[in-house]
Amino acid sequence: MGKIQDIEKRYFDLVKKIKHYEEALSLMAWDLRTGAPKKGVDGRSEVIGTFSEVVFQLTTSAEMKACLDQLREPAVQKELSEITRRSVEKSAKEYDRLVKIPADEFKNYVMIRSKAESVWAEAKEKSDFSMLQPYLEKLIDFKHRMVDYWGYKENKYDALLDQYEPGVTTETIDRVFDDLRRQIIPLVQEIKDAEDPEHDFLIGYFPKEKQREFCSHLLKEIGYDFEAGRIDETLHPFQITLNPGDVRVTTNYNENDVQSALFGLLHEGGHALYEQNISKELAGTPLYEGTSMGIHESQSLFFENFIGRSRPFWHRHFDTLKNYAGGLLDQIDIESFYRAINVAGPSLIRIEADELTYPLHIIVRYEIEKGLFNGDLKVKDLPGVWNEKMEEYLGIRPERDRDGVLQDIHWSGGDFGYFPSYALGYLYAAQFKHAMLKTVPNFDDCLAEGNLAPILSWLSKHIHQYGALKTPTEILEDATGEPLNAKYLVDYLTNKYKDVYRL
Amino acid sequence: MGKIQDIEKRYFDLVKKIKHYEEALSLMAWDLRTGAPKKGVDGRSEVIGTFSEVVFQLTTSAEMKACLDQLREPAVQKELSEITRRSVEKSAKEYDRLVKIPADEFKNYVMIRSKAESVWAEAKEKSDFSMLQPYLEKLIDFKHRMVDYWGYKENKYDALLDQYEPGVTTETIDRVFDDLRRQIIPLVQEIKDAEDPEHDFLIGYFPKEKQREFCSHLLKEIGYDFEAGRIDETLHPFQITLNPGDVRVTTNYNENDVQSALFGLLHEGGHALYEQNISKELAGTPLYEGTSMGIHESQSLFFENFIGRSRPFWHRHFDTLKNYAGGLLDQIDIESFYRAINVAGPSLIRIEADELTYPLHIIVRYEIEKGLFNGDLKVKDLPGVWNEKMEEYLGIRPERDRDGVLQDIHWSGGDFGYFPSYALGYLYAAQFKHAMLKTVPNFDDCLAEGNLAPILSWLSKHIHQYGALKTPTEILEDATGEPLNAKYLVDYLTNKYKDVYRL
Repeated sequence: MGKIQDIEKRYFDLVKKIKHYEEALSLMAWDLRTGAPKKGVDGRSEVIGTFSEVVFQLTTSAEMKACLDQLREPAVQKELSEITRRSVEKSAKEYDRLVKIPADEFKNYVMIRSKAESVWAEAKEKSDFSMLQPYLEKLIDFKHRMVDYWGYKENKYDALLDQYEPGVTTETIDRVFDDLRRQIIPLVQEIKDAEDPEHDFLIGYFPKEKQREFCSHLLKEIGYDFEAGRIDETLHPFQITLNPGDVRVTTNYNENDVQSALFGLLHEGGHALYEQNISKELAGTPLYEGTSMGIHESQSLFFENFIGRSRPFWHRHFDTLKNYAGGLLDQIDIESFYRAINVAGPSLIRIEADELTYPLHIIVRYEIEKGLFNGDLKVKDLPGVWNEKMEEYLGIRPERDRDGVLQDIHWSGGDFGYFPSYALGYLYAAQFKHAMLKTVPNFDDCLAEGNLAPILSWLSKHIHQYGALKTPTEILEDATGEPLNAKYLVDYLTNKYKDVYRL
Repeated sequence: MGKIQDIEKRYFDLVKKIKHYEEALSLMAWDLRTGAPKKGVDGRSEVIGTFSEVVFQLTTSAEMKACLDQLREPAVQKELSEITRRSVEKSAKEYDRLVKIPADEFKNYVMIRSKAESVWAEAKEKSDFSMLQPYLEKLIDFKHRMVDYWGYKENKYDALLDQYEPGVTTETIDRVFDDLRRQIIPLVQEIKDAEDPEHDFLIGYFPKEKQREFCSHLLKEIGYDFEAGRIDETLHPFQITLNPGDVRVTTNYNENDVQSALFGLLHEGGHALYEQNISKELAGTPLYEGTSMGIHESQSLFFENFIGRSRPFWHRHFDTLKNYAGGLLDQIDIESFYRAINVAGPSLIRIEADELTYPLHIIVRYEIEKGLFNGDLKVKDLPGVWNEKMEEYLGIRPERDRDGVLQDIHWSGGDFGYFPSYALGYLYAAQFKHAMLKTVPNFDDCLAEGNLAPILSWLSKHIHQYGALKTPTEILEDATGEPLNAKYLVDYLTNKYKDVYRL
């Protein structure tokens, strides 16, 4: 046993060292996105390069391999705690992924990706897909080879999905996305034909300082710990974890539309609550993080939409909001406010979409990605396929590729298999909410009374505390007692939008 | 030559790597002092520990030694550029200092120092010198041994001075401090007997946001480049350089006294201008930094006092200040304002002292430090000696040691030899100003017209651009044509205070 403990110590010392570099890298990333002076960016990029290389070297080092090899021996495995076993599994997966790709191919890929991202910006600007096409072709070729190096079971796309949503497969996603698409499209059609609730009154001057104060107040109310975090301003909001006691959120204040910071911070706050509530037992292990992109997104969406755009939440907070709004909302009642913040309808741009139509934007992207990796879809056909699917699912067709296939940076950054997590987040969140109601039947009253303890306690008990100790599927099935099921999101959206639109 | 170039490259690659770690360490330090969440501090300290160790290892590595040994060979030296030669000299000095002290002794010292700093806080709180005495004794014993390991020429205190003010010796300081003390004490006495100009009107509500806007405006006016820096809030203001394009300042807003942020930011801004204007040719070398504590302080004091507390500066800025002050200064004329910001007189606490009496506080500390290292002054006698010197030089005597010998943290942090730099900063600044007037005879008009270009250009040409390529003495003598001379500070203070106090 003495020997195993020594190896465990060596392994965790190495993991901690990697985490130290990652903390510095996270701080540098946070700093670059929250106001680092622009003339320092080139110098900073060199530091990031140096440290990223150290992380790569440590993660794939002979020392790491030696530790992992010994800790993965069946006789040793039996002696390990659950936490160590899962940590080793996670490190080994990361090790394999990194070492299986030949270094020169990877270097070439990083160069093409970097070039593609800058070409994308120009192609989008000019709405000219042909500029980007050769780069996408190269990136997709590389991704095909990458999956070949890694190896895969059923199909190539599963291997890409697994990076973001470990264990979730095309089979599962096909099943739930089909259900979702079939049942949501008619609802979107109904909404499209109905009259929007009045919502112009939301647009108006709301000073940044007042938005900051109100949003900070709301974050406190939902349980965000300001002694283990802070809010800063940025262009594209994000949440970032530096260490278990330092979980930051960022936002972008629009002084003419409070919704941007308000729902943005509830969203990032949801991510942050997940990170702040991971069991401290996992600190210093590779398991101290969200278990997947999708489960992470379920938490941000839960706080942004299932809580933040609910009627009872505003029963508690609307008067306070009015006080901060300096007259802007004086003539508005809660019901009008509630309906206004839930206006929905088909639109071309994913990041501006509402919670009803958002999943359809993702389904378009998912079907295209699957075609590129499991089927025979060609890059040159993307604009046409994109527009047809948009017309079929959302009833609108982009006139320019910049409002269509060129709108997102993800593919130019080599991120294939990432989009589904956004929609999985909605599905998980709805299924969690349904399960939570069995333990917290007075969910609405809790919100109206500002008593979030039972809700936070459920989330912590079933999701947050585990970090990456459980897979996303384990989290979901243990918490809800069943596999992923689109029914809960469909029911939630149907009930909500029939109510908001008085259908 | 090919071989020398290879070694130079290896050496500068190593220096750059060290600088990358130092940039990360600086960012972490900045972050901890500008609002990092308190629950993340323990985790952060571990990262700082890891990186500090790497810096130590790289600075004293076999690779560093090999490069330095080869680059210091006389035959090689002749082939090197001035920049490389001076860089190597600086790295070698650092290398020698670090390796000459036995590792276990140094570790022990770091522990005692850390303990002493926390004991100091309690001893100061309780005004009980006897609590701190044994720790100071141990620290001073260690410093004596440290100087023995390093070796020294004339006396031990010179070796301590050299850490902060390379090349400046006790002999020089004795000479100028004696002049200064002899001539300033009578002036302080005169001021003490005279009536203070009215200054109560400076105290009053001045919203933080308005202070921030006005101070940012002033920093722009003095030439601070916001594309290569930013202002943040902190408890104890400081300036910090992350890389040549990222030179940050911090401040502390007191909403009832604008002077704190106003003169504080002019002070930190002076430090920052120095760092922003070092020649970019020196980037990536150990010479990209201020050449000494004292020269650095001369630049901060030049902007805080010689510019910021001058009459013509406010001829340009007083109306703008009034606009930001929301009525606070509406009834005040420039002359009253100018006199109010220059009120002076003996006081017990160094960090609250004015520019007239400040050097006397430093002289008290200098004479004590010299007694501890070159003479036979004992730690137990410090409170008594302190009080006597305060009475002799400033005419006031602390009633409690917390307002006397216990007021500064420096000695508990092992910083002996550091204090003189503060006063040297004043002396340098006055001597620079005198020399500058030969090239910029219309100095006052420049300030009144907001035309700082000739002033900045002089500072850049004679001081800033060189970074640490010249020693402080070279900088001073090349810029002013003579050795350090107390006359210029005495003249400046005499003229200014006779005017302000109408003597």
